[in-house]
Amino acid sequence: MGAPIPLSPLAPGAFPDLPAIAGVRYATTQAGVRYTGRDDVMLAVLSPGSTIAGAYTRSATRSAAVLDCQEKTGHISDQGAAILVNSGNANAFTGRHGTDAVKFVTEAAAKALNLPESRIFTSSTGVIGEPLPHDKITTKLDELVVNLSADTIKDAAQAIMTTDTFPKGSGTTVHVDGQPVHIAGIAKGSGMIAPDMATMLVYIFTDAVVNQTVLQSMVSALNNKTFNCITVDSDTSTSDTLIVGATGASGIRVTENSVGFMEGLRQVMLDLAHQVVRDGEGATKFVEISVTGASSDTDARTHAMAIANSPLVKTAIAGEDANWGRVVMAIGKSGAPADRDTLSIWFGDIRVAHEGWVDPSYNEAAAAAYMKQQELTIHVDLGLGGGTAVVWTCDLTHGYIDINADYRS
Amino acid sequence: MGAPIPLSPLAPGAFPDLPAIAGVRYATTQAGVRYTGRDDVMLAVLSPGSTIAGAYTRSATRSAAVLDCQEKTGHISDQGAAILVNSGNANAFTGRHGTDAVKFVTEAAAKALNLPESRIFTSSTGVIGEPLPHDKITTKLDELVVNLSADTIKDAAQAIMTTDTFPKGSGTTVHVDGQPVHIAGIAKGSGMIAPDMATMLVYIFTDAVVNQTVLQSMVSALNNKTFNCITVDSDTSTSDTLIVGATGASGIRVTENSVGFMEGLRQVMLDLAHQVVRDGEGATKFVEISVTGASSDTDARTHAMAIANSPLVKTAIAGEDANWGRVVMAIGKSGAPADRDTLSIWFGDIRVAHEGWVDPSYNEAAAAAYMKQQELTIHVDLGLGGGTAVVWTCDLTHGYIDINADYRS
Repeated sequence: MGAPIPLSPLAPGAFPDLPAIAGVRYATTQAGVRYTGRDDVMLAVLSPGSTIAGAYTRSATRSAAVLDCQEKTGHISDQGAAILVNSGNANAFTGRHGTDAVKFVTEAAAKALNLPESRIFTSSTGVIGEPLPHDKITTKLDELVVNLSADTIKDAAQAIMTTDTFPKGSGTTVHVDGQPVHIAGIAKGSGMIAPDMATMLVYIFTDAVVNQTVLQSMVSALNNKTFNCITVDSDTSTSDTLIVGATGASGIRVTENSVGFMEGLRQVMLDLAHQVVRDGEGATKFVEISVTGASSDTDARTHAMAIANSPLVKTAIAGEDANWGRVVMAIGKSGAPADRDTLSIWFGDIRVAHEGWVDPSYNEAAAAAYMKQQELTIHVDLGLGGGTAVVWTCDLTHGYIDINADYRS
Repeated sequence: MGAPIPLSPLAPGAFPDLPAIAGVRYATTQAGVRYTGRDDVMLAVLSPGSTIAGAYTRSATRSAAVLDCQEKTGHISDQGAAILVNSGNANAFTGRHGTDAVKFVTEAAAKALNLPESRIFTSSTGVIGEPLPHDKITTKLDELVVNLSADTIKDAAQAIMTTDTFPKGSGTTVHVDGQPVHIAGIAKGSGMIAPDMATMLVYIFTDAVVNQTVLQSMVSALNNKTFNCITVDSDTSTSDTLIVGATGASGIRVTENSVGFMEGLRQVMLDLAHQVVRDGEGATKFVEISVTGASSDTDARTHAMAIANSPLVKTAIAGEDANWGRVVMAIGKSGAPADRDTLSIWFGDIRVAHEGWVDPSYNEAAAAAYMKQQELTIHVDLGLGGGTAVVWTCDLTHGYIDINADYRS
């Protein structure tokens, strides 16, 4: 597996203090699926009456666990629920064996927790194409159940890491009708690495009472503005999974009109999404790309993602080069409408290009100084209409090549 | 501009001996547009009666010269024609000034050559966003006209280079109705670099007699199987230009049924396209990606380009890692139909994955040995239908980061 990957320079100072979510308990253990000397299985159990919403990778080669979760999401139940995750093996591209492995694990977990199989959600992340040693997981279930605790969400965040360089957590407390409601979540992901497919996995919990269809519609809408707006290397995992569980333990009901709750959930999702970018393979710069003035929001997003995924834009950022020519190139190739002569580009507050040419007041020294910052914004106004989009990415550095080409034996 | 870029390890041994094309003469000179101590302007003049076909970038931010060439291509004329190219400045994203600069240059060239402006085709490649110093080019026109020669196609190939590490030429002689017809072409391109936008420029000449509409339909069809099937970094130039001129000097007429001529033209175009990949920034491996069994040719191409552009696939190749998991990932994310359980993947002759799982006979040592070769093939069969595609790419190495991030001051 090569040398350890150093902590991302963009990592937050510490794992945050997260609010406890009544109705959710966590346990972790060392099952030795692949890694040794660290926890690699995480169980989260939600109390009866919890509602579950989810969003999953659109990959055509998605894993057996993802297919199983997708089938179970949307099902209404008064029973509790559980999320069981292993790191070290993704159980992806494992054919019939993969489907069987999910069945073994969910059956065993359902029995250990006295829950219907339809309420057991599993994820696997790590090496692909190798059979999942499901016995190593199922033999640990009794121990996991005994050790369930409300206080170990940080351990849960650590157990699901693969090539992540820091555990990712975020939480908030919002008020609904004057009453406090809590939200806390964890995530893993740092790009994609094979054999460790460092796919994105996200689990968020709240003690609010939320109808499943309301929760699902919130999660789907917010996912499009958060996790679907980040890119490290344009590659898409076979296993991306976002599950949001609402235990209802607070007794506070959230409806589709609960703007404060939705905003709190958005903040937690966005914070976790940003942390995934901050742990991007080899990342040294965190970059927000905003596009305005597009013909539509969809066009704005197409342009923003073309810029965010361009290897030439990303290497320029790594080189601290205010290379607006590469931004023009990315806009040109995106396929969405653009007019060279109405285009303006800003790096931070510095307008570098205006109406199809370098800005008359452009000062290369000021732009070069700006590019030395660790957090950057690139803003493009297309001058065509009212469409807007914001996405987040990181730079493309030698560290990315190191992690993906050199470090593997 | 930083240190010089070392010669690509994939470069051919020498510039090929190209057949002379009756009716085409070349001249080059040092105009000092940006580079010093080397030729940076190339003039090619075609005899009266030549037909001209072309293919151009689809970028929405294409340069003024590209727009001008597009407008002129398809025009029928009995007059001669000329192609005037400068390196060092792309005259892209230069607003109204850019359009004016093309006008100045084409007017001056038309006068110097006694040709209508509609028969002057120009290209510019190099730094973008800076005004083209068109006077430096136009003052050299008389010298260029005096020095026109049939024997200097290699000088022409060198004058159009920017960050290319070797000049690119290809030629062949085919027989039409038993009579020899000659084809010779030059190209430049090695990815895209700003400020040097190392865009692709290609000029191919033949002494065949070819009706303009026949030539254009051949060029358009062959372009889709050659230059449109290569990728270095997924980025698209503002200036990509392919011009094919047929002088008719051989007196041998080619029709849409001249299979031998079309095959010769295809070989020259493919050879030049491959040379661009071989000069890909930082490239150490030349990779053919073929997809069969797709639902359609379009789907096959979508999958092949997703594999060819995936940073994770390309870094795995750089690391000499037979990482078929990343190929599965790229297929999954491409958006075209795929069924995990009918998918097979080969690295060279080694079948690494079959029917949705690692091949039972897979031998990692054999695959690792194969990956050490400089020329690689990856073949995917989707098991869905009859759609096929072949594309070519290179690996993603530290050299790419060096060239695009580190080397620029």
